[in-house]
Amino acid sequence: MAPELHSLGHVALETPDLEESLYFFEGAVGLEEVERAGGTVYMRAPDEFAHHSLSLAEADAAGVDHVGWQTADEASLEGFADHLEAEGIDVRWVEAGEEAGQGEAIRFATPTGHRFELFYHVEKPDAPAEKRSKLKNKSYAACKTNPVAPRRIDHVQIWDAEALELARWMCEHLDFRVQESWEDADGSRWGTFVSANGVKIEAAVIQDDDATAPPKLNHVAYKVGSNDDIFAAAGAMREMEIPVDGFGQHAISRGSFCYARDPVSDHTIEFNGAGYLVFDPEWEPVRWQEADLIDRQWAGQHGGSVNVPY
Amino acid sequence: MAPELHSLGHVALETPDLEESLYFFEGAVGLEEVERAGGTVYMRAPDEFAHHSLSLAEADAAGVDHVGWQTADEASLEGFADHLEAEGIDVRWVEAGEEAGQGEAIRFATPTGHRFELFYHVEKPDAPAEKRSKLKNKSYAACKTNPVAPRRIDHVQIWDAEALELARWMCEHLDFRVQESWEDADGSRWGTFVSANGVKIEAAVIQDDDATAPPKLNHVAYKVGSNDDIFAAAGAMREMEIPVDGFGQHAISRGSFCYARDPVSDHTIEFNGAGYLVFDPEWEPVRWQEADLIDRQWAGQHGGSVNVPY
Amino acid sequence: MAPELHSLGHVALETPDLEESLYFFEGAVGLEEVERAGGTVYMRAPDEFAHHSLSLAEADAAGVDHVGWQTADEASLEGFADHLEAEGIDVRWVEAGEEAGQGEAIRFATPTGHRFELFYHVEKPDAPAEKRSKLKNKSYAACKTNPVAPRRIDHVQIWDAEALELARWMCEHLDFRVQESWEDADGSRWGTFVSANGVKIEAAVIQDDDATAPPKLNHVAYKVGSNDDIFAAAGAMREMEIPVDGFGQHAISRGSFCYARDPVSDHTIEFNGAGYLVFDPEWEPVRWQEADLIDRQWAGQHGGSVNVPY
Amino acid sequence: MAPELHSLGHVALETPDLEESLYFFEGAVGLEEVERAGGTVYMRAPDEFAHHSLSLAEADAAGVDHVGWQTADEASLEGFADHLEAEGIDVRWVEAGEEAGQGEAIRFATPTGHRFELFYHVEKPDAPAEKRSKLKNKSYAACKTNPVAPRRIDHVQIWDAEALELARWMCEHLDFRVQESWEDADGSRWGTFVSANGVKIEAAVIQDDDATAPPKLNHVAYKVGSNDDIFAAAGAMREMEIPVDGFGQHAISRGSFCYARDPVSDHTIEFNGAGYLVFDPEWEPVRWQEADLIDRQWAGQHGGSVNVPY
Repeated sequence: MAPELHSLGHVALETPDLEESLYFFEGAVGLEEVERAGGTVYMRAPDEFAHHSLSLAEADAAGVDHVGWQTADEASLEGFADHLEAEGIDVRWVEAGEEAGQGEAIRFATPTGHRFELFYHVEKPDAPAEKRSKLKNKSYAACKTNPVAPRRIDHVQIWDAEALELARWMCEHLDFRVQESWEDADGSRWGTFVSANGVKIEAAVIQDDDATAPPKLNHVAYKVGSNDDIFAAAGAMREMEIPVDGFGQHAISRGSFCYARDPVSDHTIEFNGAGYLVFDPEWEPVRWQEADLIDRQWAGQHGGSVNVPY
Repeated sequence: MAPELHSLGHVALETPDLEESLYFFEGAVGLEEVERAGGTVYMRAPDEFAHHSLSLAEADAAGVDHVGWQTADEASLEGFADHLEAEGIDVRWVEAGEEAGQGEAIRFATPTGHRFELFYHVEKPDAPAEKRSKLKNKSYAACKTNPVAPRRIDHVQIWDAEALELARWMCEHLDFRVQESWEDADGSRWGTFVSANGVKIEAAVIQDDDATAPPKLNHVAYKVGSNDDIFAAAGAMREMEIPVDGFGQHAISRGSFCYARDPVSDHTIEFNGAGYLVFDPEWEPVRWQEADLIDRQWAGQHGGSVNVPY
Repeated sequence: MAPELHSLGHVALETPDLEESLYFFEGAVGLEEVERAGGTVYMRAPDEFAHHSLSLAEADAAGVDHVGWQTADEASLEGFADHLEAEGIDVRWVEAGEEAGQGEAIRFATPTGHRFELFYHVEKPDAPAEKRSKLKNKSYAACKTNPVAPRRIDHVQIWDAEALELARWMCEHLDFRVQESWEDADGSRWGTFVSANGVKIEAAVIQDDDATAPPKLNHVAYKVGSNDDIFAAAGAMREMEIPVDGFGQHAISRGSFCYARDPVSDHTIEFNGAGYLVFDPEWEPVRWQEADLIDRQWAGQHGGSVNVPY
Repeated sequence: MAPELHSLGHVALETPDLEESLYFFEGAVGLEEVERAGGTVYMRAPDEFAHHSLSLAEADAAGVDHVGWQTADEASLEGFADHLEAEGIDVRWVEAGEEAGQGEAIRFATPTGHRFELFYHVEKPDAPAEKRSKLKNKSYAACKTNPVAPRRIDHVQIWDAEALELARWMCEHLDFRVQESWEDADGSRWGTFVSANGVKIEAAVIQDDDATAPPKLNHVAYKVGSNDDIFAAAGAMREMEIPVDGFGQHAISRGSFCYARDPVSDHTIEFNGAGYLVFDPEWEPVRWQEADLIDRQWAGQHGGSVNVPY
């Protein structure tokens, strides 16, 4: 039986100054710290039960250690490992607990060098008592966390000089499916928007026009509850002196956005609202062409991106 | 390979006065009419691409013809048919097109008499040009439909004198899984909240204290974009002279609600906001007990329900 | 020249347990503490520049010391004092600073015993640096205060066995004007909704059916930014174990509401959203009669009130 | 007694193609047509009771006939007329009914040529029965009007080569007061934000760097109910093929915005949300200096303006 991917799990990031970056990730964005282990801080959003959706470690320079994807079951780990090795991909097994709160996992690089991790099991530690929600289907009480804290991880945007090939490889070998795509006027594919679970876009795979550029992460998106929260997030970033690189709504995915950037590491968090969900086993990818719209942004503008390499 | 269910598809309802009921479903709630065929009106919400999520036919009395569930693939139809027949369930095949816009399907009754349909294929007709969105990932332009129109079908609530047994049967034989449950103080199960896709609750299976009551449908929930829309819906119902049976937010599912009832048929539509999504292959059902909360509603109140039998 | 009233300024409340009540007013509702002086805690909402909109002092029992109204200018203080004394009302002058942050004021009781204060000048202390907004037209940064903190004081609701007479007296002698009124089916006036500034309702004057009841304060309303905040407030009260006595939207004033009650003092804060503003010098009072609506609440329900006497 | 201004009443605009422009003002923005008389179409927003807040007439070119301000009482009309004539301003009396739905008025030009009208009385025609709200304090039912229709007129932005002098003149001779102001880094005043009623900014008086430019109107702002409506408005404009010139939130006034422009006349409507109200008789103008903020917009961006001359 073919191994199955389930959903985006977490990103493991690096920063040149851990404490300074925590001002951004915890103080401004509002992620909750779950655990510190081995110099790494593990964080999650207030609606998340899983141990972490973002981890941060200090390194010489800002970077991306890996993007973590959850499989549909334990057996799929072995299945993906076998399949990838048969494809000539170097697969490393990570023991349970090497990444805090998590069962065993495999790590490998895509042909163009994106470092991915696949894991299945993850612990679900209770929120601390003073922040825990009285709702058993919620982890942290909304009134007891950062006022702009987003709810849960939504997607990553990754850049690649061979983006179309990467997207195809992810679909063929890692069980992703295409939800939307965008072609520029010259017929080249600018972006492919893929999903592991088929319900929402989980990776935007974007063409890097610099053919020599290394694979990079543009941003990690976290979901907020409403478009009003997008305004609240933008205002909060200004109050906290955090750079905002864009504010508006995408046509692709229909997601509203506010891009906030850690001035220390350039890692960017997208506060992401609106959007839509797919409950359709026969979904045909939405194929945008540049001529379809006068502006790829449905509202507002996306300013200059800052990509961070692995 | 075991047949797989994918998600809630539609409900097929009956009313003693079709035109009067359309004042409710189309005029007040804001569903869009897609097709009239054989005395049945097929409707969908503005964010839906599938041919219909609700159909309405005239009958002697208000009733429920069936609740329709989509399977994960074509083969699962045959798989479920075989499995159900082996269980002694009477299965009827419905030809493609008998229900407008839909491929072949099977119909059967659960042991306690809920009439379910399973189908796989459904057409996706374009919205009419004058209402079609310029967004290729949206069907109707939001500014061109009913101002309170909800986005997409979310769940059904069904009542049964043997609700716990029904919920277990649905999980064992129809690939549902439990997302939440509620036990009253006496230890009896009041409700089981199950999902086909594992991402959101799609059927609330509620205990009917009247042991002789026939199986019934309490309401069909459609998703709105924000809690502000819940207020807008309540106001619109008042402006349209539509009875509202409840307004607030559930603890179970965290869904905010406004219950609007067709005065002609007593069929109830829940405008449903907030809530949460599950992206967790290891999800453990949330087991509420009456003592967990001072009130099962997190905010506001759910007034008297009006159930409609099949 | 006739003295002029400008707007509702503050309420001065008493509680049997100051610290316990601060859990409610500061911890749950989110008012910011500005000053403690003489056993009284002065608080304001995050959008307020004036020194306080609510003060709280410990007393043998819960009570209302006074409701404070700001005059349009300094001269109006003297003008009102002269006028009221000519009407046989006992007027006491309060020296500047007796009430912290405030200039001189007059205090008196209405004929039925509501204790009112009129003042003109009030200090506008800066928010503490760590909470101050970078917006010069805002006092506290929204992301640095209690997540459910309302924006500014909006209105009071007061009960009186002679409510109609009280409302008329307030209009004749204190420069209030009627914005809306409600007559019950028997023709009796249930409530008169008056304004000092003419822009919004600032006092709801409600008939107490108990002819021997002392004058009382039902609640103090603070404005929130959106209907979504009404849901957020209700949820926060549940998380904080604060009783909620109503949730929905009034037809009168069009205000959406969530009533939260301090379990120690029974003082009630209304989180109030929506509503409308009057910019019309010819405004004719809106005269509701019971038959106009099937329910005085436009959405949801107002549960039992707990009035607190002066 | 000095004459008093009360609030912004309406703008009287001209377009080269009336019917084409109505596609914008009625079809896209959602203003309701109240009356057509003498080639002029009178419109108002769904929450307005006054006869009109915007009128549109066909002319050779797009232009502004006048901006209309309501006085606090009838006597103030005569008072302002006398005062202005004593200042050497040419005042023309307009008979009741010359402008549909309105009592007598005076018209004049400010020293730099802005054509203003002062009026006191305005009729309040009922909304048509099929659109009328069941709420007696609301004119049109929200569910029966254009889904993005804003609630009420809020302010105008006017440009002038002598903006600071104009603002001072308006305060000295027309009873305006300054609520906020903005100085550029070179010490020059970029904008003065004035109010007739003291509760909200009603005219933004902006410096035109072209010393020879005629006086112009940049936009008319209408208030929406929430920041979510700003997103809805932007999306609706895209669906209706209406140009959007800016999307975000101002620091000045704290208003959120979406600027929509009639492609036929270049008249611009700002959908305006958020903001704050002043209930403070001692309000000190907020004096911004360029160095106070890294960007005058708190969120998003204001694109190029298109000003329309009188």
